Amino acid sequence: MTQPIDTALSDALRDRFAALVTPGQALTEPGDLAPFLRETRDLFPGRSRLVLRPGSVDEVSAILRLASETRTPVVPQGGNTGHVGGQMPRSEAEIVLSLSRLDRIREIDPAGQTITVDAGVVLQRVQEAADEAGLLFPLSLGSEGSCQIGGNLASNAGGTGVIAYGNSRELCLGIEAVLASGELFHGLRRLKKDNRGYDLRQLLIGSEGTLGVITGAVLRLFPKPRGREVAYAGLSTPEAMLQLLARAQGAAGNQLTAFEIMPRLAMEFTLKHTRGARDPLASPHAWYVLVEVSSNRSSEDAAAAMETVLAGALEAGEIEDATVARSGADAALFWRMREEMSWAQKPEGGSIKHDVSVPVALVPEFLRRADAAVRAAIPGVRVVSFGHLGDGNIHYNLSQPVGADRDAFLARWGEINALVHGIVAELGGSFAAEHGIGQLKRDELARTKPAVEMELMRGIKNLFDPFGILNPGKVV
Amino acid sequence: MTQPIDTALSDALRDRFAALVTPGQALTEPGDLAPFLRETRDLFPGRSRLVLRPGSVDEVSAILRLASETRTPVVPQGGNTGHVGGQMPRSEAEIVLSLSRLDRIREIDPAGQTITVDAGVVLQRVQEAADEAGLLFPLSLGSEGSCQIGGNLASNAGGTGVIAYGNSRELCLGIEAVLASGELFHGLRRLKKDNRGYDLRQLLIGSEGTLGVITGAVLRLFPKPRGREVAYAGLSTPEAMLQLLARAQGAAGNQLTAFEIMPRLAMEFTLKHTRGARDPLASPHAWYVLVEVSSNRSSEDAAAAMETVLAGALEAGEIEDATVARSGADAALFWRMREEMSWAQKPEGGSIKHDVSVPVALVPEFLRRADAAVRAAIPGVRVVSFGHLGDGNIHYNLSQPVGADRDAFLARWGEINALVHGIVAELGGSFAAEHGIGQLKRDELARTKPAVEMELMRGIKNLFDPFGILNPGKVV
Repeated sequence: MTQPIDTALSDALRDRFAALVTPGQALTEPGDLAPFLRETRDLFPGRSRLVLRPGSVDEVSAILRLASETRTPVVPQGGNTGHVGGQMPRSEAEIVLSLSRLDRIREIDPAGQTITVDAGVVLQRVQEAADEAGLLFPLSLGSEGSCQIGGNLASNAGGTGVIAYGNSRELCLGIEAVLASGELFHGLRRLKKDNRGYDLRQLLIGSEGTLGVITGAVLRLFPKPRGREVAYAGLSTPEAMLQLLARAQGAAGNQLTAFEIMPRLAMEFTLKHTRGARDPLASPHAWYVLVEVSSNRSSEDAAAAMETVLAGALEAGEIEDATVARSGADAALFWRMREEMSWAQKPEGGSIKHDVSVPVALVPEFLRRADAAVRAAIPGVRVVSFGHLGDGNIHYNLSQPVGADRDAFLARWGEINALVHGIVAELGGSFAAEHGIGQLKRDELARTKPAVEMELMRGIKNLFDPFGILNPGKVV
Repeated sequence: MTQPIDTALSDALRDRFAALVTPGQALTEPGDLAPFLRETRDLFPGRSRLVLRPGSVDEVSAILRLASETRTPVVPQGGNTGHVGGQMPRSEAEIVLSLSRLDRIREIDPAGQTITVDAGVVLQRVQEAADEAGLLFPLSLGSEGSCQIGGNLASNAGGTGVIAYGNSRELCLGIEAVLASGELFHGLRRLKKDNRGYDLRQLLIGSEGTLGVITGAVLRLFPKPRGREVAYAGLSTPEAMLQLLARAQGAAGNQLTAFEIMPRLAMEFTLKHTRGARDPLASPHAWYVLVEVSSNRSSEDAAAAMETVLAGALEAGEIEDATVARSGADAALFWRMREEMSWAQKPEGGSIKHDVSVPVALVPEFLRRADAAVRAAIPGVRVVSFGHLGDGNIHYNLSQPVGADRDAFLARWGEINALVHGIVAELGGSFAAEHGIGQLKRDELARTKPAVEMELMRGIKNLFDPFGILNPGKVV
């Protein structure tokens, strides 16, 4: 694969690209560029001389045609909420292609339960549009107020709804994308069954902008539950959480719409740093589970199902205590406490983060082994291991020891990752569960993936993007 | 792509292949070969001098290594139930690779709700193994007693459970496959979230044996419903069926586990040709829906949900009549009548078949337009359009006019396909919803798929199978 030359974009070429979008939508001033060159974790400084904000799929197409012709690297960017640096340009040779202005909701089909949207529509707007049509779009993430659906698909985002509804991949029926050549991939199908050859859509989903630029999508909608019940349960061990999960799945099936776990320390950080947070239970517990049960029939039905689960679990000694949200405000607070957990770690100093998954039944073993390993490596390290137990997906995040030097702690990122990911690998798990590869994990992917798979991945990359202009230095 | 030379397999080469499997598992006698060379529709006569029945993944690997080295084409075959000729060898140059002896259930993980199986395990055995573990494997097809899970995945099989649980693709967490080179693709992951680069598993699923030979899979299991309620409703129009679907989805959500439609004529064929069948309703109706509602709580709960749906629909005038199965035997009969529908067409003479999907809301329009078109083309043609309304998937099958010449009728297959598929295309649908491409629809795929997608498909084929030895003449 030809690699683009890493010299800064020339003024002349910059002008040619700028001419492809509406005047004012080619940003070149440092102040205008800044928000596109900085990401939330401050791990991946962005560099670029040009941000393009096309207003149509045709403009995206023209940009990629010129990029292919001139071998100019292009970094697609959605809501700029990614955690692995996939959306960050790494040199002044690279152009940022922002999808933000492709923000139309194209069509809602209530009978077919689909919504067709531009890639730049913010996730929360998709949720709201579905809601207005009396339906549910179940993808739900901490950053839903700013992440965009194109980015969600490009990274196959997960989140809290996966347990009942699947990942972004499973929520997507059709994809429209511009390929490296500028050609359009017309895949905006509204079909639940379509076996016409290889499913190329599945390659674009999760490719983090390295195989094409997603410009539109058809998403699945679901009947909106008529009732939702949210509770916090307090438990003593990870094994007990697994028992509660099995009980809740058995009793509620796909109506178990969330099962989020967190240790006491995560709860303490949240209580300390999240406005309005309050301890849901009277006394502290080693572990907390946020359980959500939904019902298509009524809130009474959801309440009855929750009651069955919690009463049975109390009686069986699986849980120590539990409390059910008594109002919509209560439920919103319960959820907000979970969603802000990642932010609540910030004031506690440096964090070394992991986004791992293991087979669900092995989560307790993973936690036990990883805790022992990181505590041996860094005495006093504070483990904030929260996540989606039903998906086997743990955000195994570590806060620095109290009073430790932040930079010295963060300098051990690679070493600690290697420890934790080693345990994950032994358990048949993944070191990139729902945040993708981007820049952060690219070397690790190349190091750990079987050679035959890396070869196939590189072959596919070369097939879709022979000049290597699409998001170079990411994923493969 | 180098095409294998189409001369009959030599005796010498045949012996080399035969030596790779246990004595007795290389079939060469016409009588032994026969069952592998004939398929249920009798549309695709098979030709081959050798059927290999490997007993291990290593043997599959050795076979493909030799096949690559000697450029010998290999046709993987599971339960031999495919409808599009994907499993049939087309010349004496081709070897049949039967997966039937890879039939171990490797592992069940109840906590993680997964089952790991060899590719040759018959679908019904997977269902039974899940059931014994107190769980559900929801893939369900007419041929479940003989089709194999490897073939289900290779063709991304659909069936009646898709409405609640998804296609085979969505039911598969991990894949093990032998690639054309003989190398093993180690993808037997039990993970619900795994974003480590391009999802190659998704290419193998639905590739109909043209990119690799699936040898094992990790499948998702679900809590087994504690209650199931099955009913037949009689309706007057396709529009009314859509209204009933929306009502049932709204009331039952993912607990609506089947919604199968059929016209009166299909019911009549079934009554006439299926042993034990009886008209479920007192008087005839233009359309019938088999509705199944499940509950994770109890049979009373399922019954209550069904009652809500049917009573509401009766009151709203959406349905004319309905009857609920009053016993397990009743429910089994209701299902058998649906499942044998396709067989019940056989005694009525020649059938021209279609396996199409359109956006759900457009099914009534599709039926209206297709009926008019085929009736104009063949006066007296008998339309037996049944299928999965929740998936927009109709088996638009045509029985010959009474007394017409079977061969003359079947000679118009291509012409009628073109008519029906033309309407499907105008409605944004697919001419290959759940049965795949195989031999039957390969030319049509090449003709109708956008050039850029065909190029990518051919590029992928070439990447995975540079010598073109895997199931040549199928799909691409």
